[in-house]
Parts: sequence; C-alpha cells; structure tokens
Amino acid sequence: MTDTGLLRVELQCVLCGAAHRPTVDASVCPRHEGLTGILDVIAPGDGTRSGAGSDPLDRYRARLPLPPGPRRLPSGYLTATPLLPAPRLAADLGVAELLVKDESRNPTGSLKDRASALAVELAAHAGFTDVACASTGNAASSLAGACAAVGLTARIFVPASTPVGKLAQLAAFGARVMLVRGSYDDAYDLCEEAARAFGWYDRNCAVNPYLMEGKKTCGLEIADQLGDAGADWVSVAVGDGCTVAALGKGLAEMRLPRSPRLLAVQPAGAAPIARAWERGSEDIVPVPARTVADSVSVGAPRNAVKALRAVRASGGAFLTVTDDEILDAARMLGTLAGVFAEPGAAAGIAGVRRARAEGLIGPGDRVVHVVTGSGLKTATSVGAAFPEVAPTLDAVRAVVGLG
Amino acid sequence: MTDTGLLRVELQCVLCGAAHRPTVDASVCPRHEGLTGILDVIAPGDGTRSGAGSDPLDRYRARLPLPPGPRRLPSGYLTATPLLPAPRLAADLGVAELLVKDESRNPTGSLKDRASALAVELAAHAGFTDVACASTGNAASSLAGACAAVGLTARIFVPASTPVGKLAQLAAFGARVMLVRGSYDDAYDLCEEAARAFGWYDRNCAVNPYLMEGKKTCGLEIADQLGDAGADWVSVAVGDGCTVAALGKGLAEMRLPRSPRLLAVQPAGAAPIARAWERGSEDIVPVPARTVADSVSVGAPRNAVKALRAVRASGGAFLTVTDDEILDAARMLGTLAGVFAEPGAAAGIAGVRRARAEGLIGPGDRVVHVVTGSGLKTATSVGAAFPEVAPTLDAVRAVVGLG
Repeated sequence: MTDTGLLRVELQCVLCGAAHRPTVDASVCPRHEGLTGILDVIAPGDGTRSGAGSDPLDRYRARLPLPPGPRRLPSGYLTATPLLPAPRLAADLGVAELLVKDESRNPTGSLKDRASALAVELAAHAGFTDVACASTGNAASSLAGACAAVGLTARIFVPASTPVGKLAQLAAFGARVMLVRGSYDDAYDLCEEAARAFGWYDRNCAVNPYLMEGKKTCGLEIADQLGDAGADWVSVAVGDGCTVAALGKGLAEMRLPRSPRLLAVQPAGAAPIARAWERGSEDIVPVPARTVADSVSVGAPRNAVKALRAVRASGGAFLTVTDDEILDAARMLGTLAGVFAEPGAAAGIAGVRRARAEGLIGPGDRVVHVVTGSGLKTATSVGAAFPEVAPTLDAVRAVVGLG
Repeated sequence: MTDTGLLRVELQCVLCGAAHRPTVDASVCPRHEGLTGILDVIAPGDGTRSGAGSDPLDRYRARLPLPPGPRRLPSGYLTATPLLPAPRLAADLGVAELLVKDESRNPTGSLKDRASALAVELAAHAGFTDVACASTGNAASSLAGACAAVGLTARIFVPASTPVGKLAQLAAFGARVMLVRGSYDDAYDLCEEAARAFGWYDRNCAVNPYLMEGKKTCGLEIADQLGDAGADWVSVAVGDGCTVAALGKGLAEMRLPRSPRLLAVQPAGAAPIARAWERGSEDIVPVPARTVADSVSVGAPRNAVKALRAVRASGGAFLTVTDDEILDAARMLGTLAGVFAEPGAAAGIAGVRRARAEGLIGPGDRVVHVVTGSGLKTATSVGAAFPEVAPTLDAVRAVVGLG
C-alpha cells in the first residue's frame, strides 16, 4: 500500500499546505480535526495538451494519478460525453447560447463514473479486493458498475431513503449494500469507520484525494470541446462540493483564453456552502438537508473549502434555488433540450434562470450546464398522467382534438 | 413530400422486387396485403469507407438516406457506443472472447435512438410538425427525446401495460402519449391509422423503409470497432425483426474478412420468427406474446422477412430462451460485466449460453453481444432486498460477518 512515487503527483493539505506522500491509500491530513484536512493533488505535465481517443482516462492520462501499467477497466469504459447546443432552451432562458454537457451518457448514468473508474484502477493496482463508498446513489452505482467490470467487491452505504431506481442498479451489479437508518451524513461517517476497520479501499471523494482528479476530466473535456471560443459560465449543482471543485480544476488546467466562471447552485433546503459563501467564510454550519434533489441533498458537506475556492478563483458565484424551480428546470431540460435529468442535475438550469434575472448572467452570454445524472434513476417519482384510449381512431381523434 | 431523388437511395419491395421512388414519406409496396410489402433501401457508396467523428449520422453519412443540408440534431447527439471486452462473462459462458456493444449509452438509453435520430432529420426536412410511432417503450422514448431536441411533436402509441420508467421518460420529454387498451400489436395498428388520418410522419421501423438504415449504423460501428480481426457471432434479441435485420445489413456492408454470424434470440413466449425459421418458412403465425422481456414482446412481428433473410445470409441461426434464462442472463451481465441491461437486452446472452451448450458456438469463438437498452427503465421490476442497519460499526460487522 505504500508505493510512493508511482503515482507521480504531489499531495498538499488545503488547510495548512503540508506535503504528503502520494500512496494509493492516502487520506486526510492528520493535523486537523476529523476529516477536514482534505488533500489536493498537484498533477504534473502540461495542462494544455490532450492525448488521443475518447476515454478520458486515456486522453488525459498525463494529468491523472493513474498507476503505471495496463488499465484494469477496458478502454472505452468511459467515453467522452457530448456537449450539445440547446437553442430552444437558450431562448427560453434568455441567453445567447446554452450547451448541455450530458453526463447521463456515462456507463451507469452519472458523472460519478469518472471518479469510480479511477478508484477501481487504484484499488486493483494496490491489491485491494473491496472498495467502499457512502452515497446518495450515483457514486454508489458508479462504483458498483466499475467493480463488477473488473471483479472487485463494492461495499455501499446509502441512506435507507435512497430512490428505488438507484437501489435496483446496485442490485444489478451485485454490490454489497447497507441501507443505513439515518441521513447521508450518518451513512458517510459509518462508511469511513467501516473502511478503516475492515481494510476496504476508500472511494469517498472528499477523503480520497485522487478521486476528484477523475471528476476533473469532465472539466478538461468541456474545455477541449469549447476550444478557444470558450464560454462565460459553467453551471452545476453542488452537494458535497467535490464536483464543482473538480470542474473548476479541470477548466483552469486547460487555460482557455475565455475560461468560464462557475455558477455553483444549491437547493435552498440544502445550501450550507452557499450560506458560507454569502458570509464570506470557509466555515460551514451544517443544516438538516431537505430537498427534492436527492443527489445533492447534503447537510454537512465534506469538500466545502475546495468548492468555495474553486468558485472564487473562477470569478463565479454561489446561489440557491427552490425545489419548485428545480422541478421546473428538469421539465425545461426534457421538453426544450431532449435531455432527461434527475432533479439535482437540473438545479443548475434553475440557477441560470435566476442569475439571468438578477443580471449576473447577460443576454449575450455563452453558458454550459452540466447534467450530472440521468432522470431514469428517479423516474418513479415522476407522475405520468397520459390518456388511456380504446384501440379506435375515434378515441384518438377525441384526444387529439382534430375534429 | 415528394422530393424524389434528394435521398439518393433506391427502394425495393422485399416481396416482389418492385422499385419505388425514395420520397421522404415512402411506405410499403401497395401490391401486397396490409403492411407486408416492406421496402428495402439500397444505399449508394462504398461500404468499407467511414467518415470522421463519433456521431454515426456524420461518420456513415455517405451510406445513409439523410436529406441534404445541415443536420437538425446537433452533431454528437448520437455518439459511438463502446464495444467492451467482458473477460469474466466470457469465462462464465465458456467462450474465448465476449464483447458487449453497450447501446444503453445512447441519448435515451437504447439502440432505438439511432433510428429516431434519422426519422427526426427526415421529418423536419420535409416540413412535418408531428412524428408518430407505436412502441413497447424504447422506440417511443427515443422519438420523444429527439423530437424535444429539435422542437417537433412526438405522437406515441404504447400498450397501457408499458413500464413506469419508460412512461416517465415520455413525460419528461413532453411527448403526446396514448395508452392503448390492448397489446403492442393493437397500438401499432392504431398508430398507422392515426398517422395516415392526421398527416403525421410515420416513425414505425417496418413501414418506414429509412429507419432501419439508422439502426444499421450499429452494425457498421461494430464492424469498424472489430476491424480485420472480425468476430464469429453477434447475438441480439429479436422482437419485430428490424434490429437484427439492420445489424446484419450494416455488418454485411462493411465486408469484414471474418464477418460474424447472427445469433437471433427470441423469448420462448414470443417467438413467431424463430418458429418460422424452424419450419424453414417466411410465413409468420402470430402468437399471443407473453414474456418478461417487454422490449421484444411482439406476437405479430412486422419485419420477419428481412430478419429471416439477414440471419440466413450471415450463416447464423435463430433460437429461443426461457424467461428464467433471460433474467439469469441479465444478472450475469450486471455482476460479471458491469452492464445493466433490460431483460430484452440480456436475452442474447441467454442465447449464447444455449448455443454454446448445443455446440453451435465453440469454445474458441469471439462473440459480440448487443445490449439494446438500459435496465434503468425497467428497474422497478427488480426487487432489491438489502440489509438495513443502524449507523453503528457493530451493525455493519454483523452483516459483513467478519467477526
């Protein structure tokens, strides 16, 4: 477990700046309370160069903490996800251009696949047989899928309230799941304790410094796809803070001439990072999380410091949106862009609408929105009230109203 | 609607060989009863050449009946789906190599997106405002998504028994849906009647000769990805027969030195084409379809002739599998390959197991299996019985059984 140097990166504590050895199982800086001493990965290489191919772990290999030697997951397990112009949604939002980065195309339907693929490469390389994570759903299913692809055991801790679609995915991949009686925060703490006790590799994205580098590939890819034209904003919903921080890191590493600002959007019922932003502080006051956007329903976020700094460094902003605005945004994404997003993955669109109303985003702006996960996983919560008809043309005519 | 020649293809009746004009709204050959005079598209160009890029409508444009001028769907709406080696599943099945073509990565989660994208390009070009289809689910959601992306109205006819996940997707895309009291076959007939009555573009894959060309891109892509190494078999489940016929057409056009044979698999409870194959006939005897594999639950298949001929031309075979074998195959795909397939999309794996047992497939064979659709859409039918634990390490210890 101590193959120092193999990963060819440096680790640095975000709180005190102390350097740490890049072992495969590196965790937090012990000088700080609990799990707050998050480490940051300082990657080598030239950020403006990309390799060939579509799989981001191949394409951006030079900038990732991948172990040496052949990959465990087949090349193509991850693929580049598309960045799709959505002119009708842009018109509805009142911006010049709206581009949807559709992360629901990932192997298990969410951006989390990028981090889990990296975790599985590291765990398998270091000889672990079990990989653990706590999750509101997407991180769990992504880990379960990647583990099944290479033959590792996924140990999953989810709140007992996790949507059925997400549990069904875990069952399909043969993951070992604990339904924890409690919140996501309870599941998280229990997972950390169990991983230490049983010697499981830790896939939690705040504590394991490498995993954010997997998510970073989404930012690298967006920058690659935007090219020199760049964009004004990238909007995304925020829960633990890892994803927005990783997007910011990836975008910054590519040094676009017109690098986008981050619009970091939290549901009003789970907005502890946005509240800290408003206070100009890095101190988080935990809240009881309550929102329809289960994938970002986090009351005690683990990566708030990195998130706050990434948004600030980009010249961006945090804001909050209501659950009604989130559900409306999901409808807009589906009907005006043809992308079926889970509520958490639509929150950023609600944020764009609000930022446009407040003048933060201008009518001439070019905006990227990241759909972090598929709406299929939460589909049972969507009511579909369609007309039932007898198999006759007259019955259809009555419904269509064409006489 | 009569822009003859624009599509630069020829149409030929599969029953009598008569030539037809390639209008955008071409349908069946009127010399035959009902809808049986299916037309085949004779594409121009050199099948062994591919264009650049990942979007199959761009990459294979020279071989597709696409209208001239700019695309309506953004480039990248479709992407190449990966062909992933699954060595653990190969070992379990007793074949040398098993490669999974993961069509669940498509924009709405199924292979049908390839046909719907083409339909939307044709309909928009010809000035239609509404596009109709009958579907067991996947064709409908793919049409609904593509229509939402370009601003057309999707008119959907589904059996009232369609799974909730598929209806939720239709709702998300704002499709106009009729839940038809009756079977898929009833919904199909009603859709044809309504499309004619109301002037809607017809997206049904058997009647509209162009749509199979969209699905054909899956075969072209598999051949591209296999390269000269080729493969021995491509397995896929069969309902109406369009998909297997289209795969065969695409593979044949690419003229691989080692071109795979088609393993066409039907559920025992919905196997009218396999029964005709056993009799050595092209005459279909309709059956009451009864199977857990809703996406291929078709009792009166519309494209049996093309399917039978494609399988024969490839040197392949039809066979049937039970619902238990299908559900077991879905488990194997999930736990041994990390791919979450709907039951219909796993049937081909059950077919490979059976063909291997019967000696049709040999231990040294290289086999491709096409996962035609995502398991997320039928997720509510999967029971997940995970242990619920209190948030304490002792509770975890008891479940893990590590002392």
